[in-house]
Amino acid sequence: MPHGNALEGLDSFHRWFGERARASDYLVKEAPLERLDGWRVDPDTGNLVHRTGRFYTVEGLEVTTGGAGAERSWAQPIIRQPEIGILGILVKEFDGVPHLLMQAKMEPGNINTLQLSPTVQATHSNYTRVHRGKAVPYLEYFTVPGRGRPLADALQSEQGSWFLGKRNRNLIIGTDDDVPVLDGFRWVPRTELDALLRLDNVVNMDSRSVLAAYPVPVDARLAREDSYRGALARSAAAPADATELLSRFTAAKATRSLTRRRVPLASVPGWHNDGTRVAREDGRYFSVLGVDVEAGDREVARWSQPLIAPAGRGVIALVTRRTDGLLRLLLSVRTQAGTFDVAELGATVQCDPANHPDAPPPFLDHVLSAPQDRIRFDAVHSEEGGRFHHAENRYLVVEAGDDLPLEAPDGYLWATLRDTAELVRHSHYLNVEARCLLACLNTLR
Amino acid sequence: MPHGNALEGLDSFHRWFGERARASDYLVKEAPLERLDGWRVDPDTGNLVHRTGRFYTVEGLEVTTGGAGAERSWAQPIIRQPEIGILGILVKEFDGVPHLLMQAKMEPGNINTLQLSPTVQATHSNYTRVHRGKAVPYLEYFTVPGRGRPLADALQSEQGSWFLGKRNRNLIIGTDDDVPVLDGFRWVPRTELDALLRLDNVVNMDSRSVLAAYPVPVDARLAREDSYRGALARSAAAPADATELLSRFTAAKATRSLTRRRVPLASVPGWHNDGTRVAREDGRYFSVLGVDVEAGDREVARWSQPLIAPAGRGVIALVTRRTDGLLRLLLSVRTQAGTFDVAELGATVQCDPANHPDAPPPFLDHVLSAPQDRIRFDAVHSEEGGRFHHAENRYLVVEAGDDLPLEAPDGYLWATLRDTAELVRHSHYLNVEARCLLACLNTLR
Repeated sequence: MPHGNALEGLDSFHRWFGERARASDYLVKEAPLERLDGWRVDPDTGNLVHRTGRFYTVEGLEVTTGGAGAERSWAQPIIRQPEIGILGILVKEFDGVPHLLMQAKMEPGNINTLQLSPTVQATHSNYTRVHRGKAVPYLEYFTVPGRGRPLADALQSEQGSWFLGKRNRNLIIGTDDDVPVLDGFRWVPRTELDALLRLDNVVNMDSRSVLAAYPVPVDARLAREDSYRGALARSAAAPADATELLSRFTAAKATRSLTRRRVPLASVPGWHNDGTRVAREDGRYFSVLGVDVEAGDREVARWSQPLIAPAGRGVIALVTRRTDGLLRLLLSVRTQAGTFDVAELGATVQCDPANHPDAPPPFLDHVLSAPQDRIRFDAVHSEEGGRFHHAENRYLVVEAGDDLPLEAPDGYLWATLRDTAELVRHSHYLNVEARCLLACLNTLR
Repeated sequence: MPHGNALEGLDSFHRWFGERARASDYLVKEAPLERLDGWRVDPDTGNLVHRTGRFYTVEGLEVTTGGAGAERSWAQPIIRQPEIGILGILVKEFDGVPHLLMQAKMEPGNINTLQLSPTVQATHSNYTRVHRGKAVPYLEYFTVPGRGRPLADALQSEQGSWFLGKRNRNLIIGTDDDVPVLDGFRWVPRTELDALLRLDNVVNMDSRSVLAAYPVPVDARLAREDSYRGALARSAAAPADATELLSRFTAAKATRSLTRRRVPLASVPGWHNDGTRVAREDGRYFSVLGVDVEAGDREVARWSQPLIAPAGRGVIALVTRRTDGLLRLLLSVRTQAGTFDVAELGATVQCDPANHPDAPPPFLDHVLSAPQDRIRFDAVHSEEGGRFHHAENRYLVVEAGDDLPLEAPDGYLWATLRDTAELVRHSHYLNVEARCLLACLNTLR
């Protein structure tokens, strides 16, 4: 077979992935922040900075949000990385079946070390080779105009709780080239990726984020079914009419406010650097820790870096409902510390329940108490292991119970899949949690 | 007639507009900056600020742009107004013909005092009544969800040369209500507005900006014509395929950089406040001057304010070309001092030729030397008279000559009208100059 592996199925994938895991030669050890090679705690600010001034910094941020209910103010540590990386997936048809070129990639924060990442997953520092590491393979498909056919290409935001205005260029590029498959890479059929997305911790965040914009064709046969999946297919084929949705979102942005001020990390109240980690006294939210890494298959064989380690496992859930035969998705309007432009549309629920012991966020109880037959998707996925340490979330797609009011409450919007797919083609509508859920939801099509 | 004036035609409009002008009771006088009532020159920074700290400030900005050819750095005065105003047009059908509720509005910077403005044109200070002035009529149609049908609603940027990240909410709202027509307002048929857009200095910038997103239906008869207008109609009906365009624009944003630092106005090299105006020694670009205003029909009867006065009349031109029977528009990728997010798509040419005596910008000569039969639109329009003093631009739509290379040069993109109309539904794709031209171009449909 010209492409090496296509059409061999999931067993073959797992054999390959297992081999990659065994062949990987890496070691990740937690190390005290004050002894991370190449990094230092700035004596004036307490910020964590690389000696070159590059890559990223961990600093403090004061935040005030207004307009969505009461005004709120807080301060927190946040990662600042004011550069735009590339997350790109190459797509090619073999025997009429679209295959995606994926990579088994080690990231130091991954709970299981190797996960499936896009063809190219590179920070600006990576691909301009600040590391003086190896060149990034396949990069030219995503940087040289006309090298392939763009299927999707937009700047998309990442975790607003942990990143200050961070975004990456998310691309899907089609090609007919005879593309050499390098060690660690594999053409994965689209349907096989769907199956992998239903497994825990295989498909990494960067892949999920990019896959959200994959143009899934509507299955006409499915669209006639009187089922959840039928309603989903009809939702994808619904008349395009995002105007009402756009208007409500614009209204939210125009009436909310997000004021921020970068402050020294050492000045953030309630957070403390004890030389090992930066953490809160009450143990909530997250801590910042350091790792030493030795790896055989990365651009640089040995390095150290800080990571954000969330305190517990989160819940990222989408409430859906069938109305008029169409599935509708309940999106939330979210203003987070690092949101690029005031607000984006998020999952119905996105939180770590342990952070809210007394007042659970809206819909959390609804999704956690849903009976099995209303849970349409349920898998644990990890957030980006290059910045986050063991950051797992339970991704849920839940069909609403009859007790849920039809009207979306303030700060929430019902959207068809068609409209949501239209929004994800553009920047800064869907946050990373909503995009990752959209990739999960699309596995049901 | 229930709506007072519909279907009476252009003569009737001009009679009404002339009466409004005669009835307007206003006086605008230039006044030295150092003696503007309510405003002061901050002694530490030289910034122009209102005594309440509200409305807007004129301050200094250091700018460095990179990635689009050579790196460039400069400093300049700029208006900072970090709040989102409302520009909203109410639309209603009378006898099946859409009419837009427009307002004859005085602005102190208008060369002819009165121009036609949207139903609501209000800064956040206006409509939250910081002025303690009159309530803004019709405001509820644009702020209360469900009060009408949104036809378009997005945050849109304004002049990147003069405003720091400024944007307003641009709305078009449809209604079937029996709307009372207040003094100074008038239902204007869409086709009559087209005729008015072809006249000099009648339809103000705010109206043009909003009209850019007006959903003009495709004229099927016209689309069969072998003419410029036929190619325009076919361009509006072209298959939706903005993906390539979006990808090129995303690439530009991902590879360009825009770094800014707010600095004291007094520290901006080459600019000087002599007590009367802030201006450059060489007289280029613009100056900042003050005006005292007395008006009978405004929220507040008497006020003073600074305005930006461009040095000369500018040229805002769109080069178009027929290829494969479709009209294509040549948009430029622009990074300006105040651009909200790195780059937006602008007109082919937007400049004051007098600022470039030695090296005219690309395409300027091409549009200025175009023979009459290739000039498809030609009118002089003013920029927002609430912030800019006698800021006129010649708006041109030109059909390219055969000497123009087919390939768009670096920093330029060819787009169909269909794709452009798709982009204008979203924020921060088309800058205000491109949107105003789009409104002009649509008059040919």
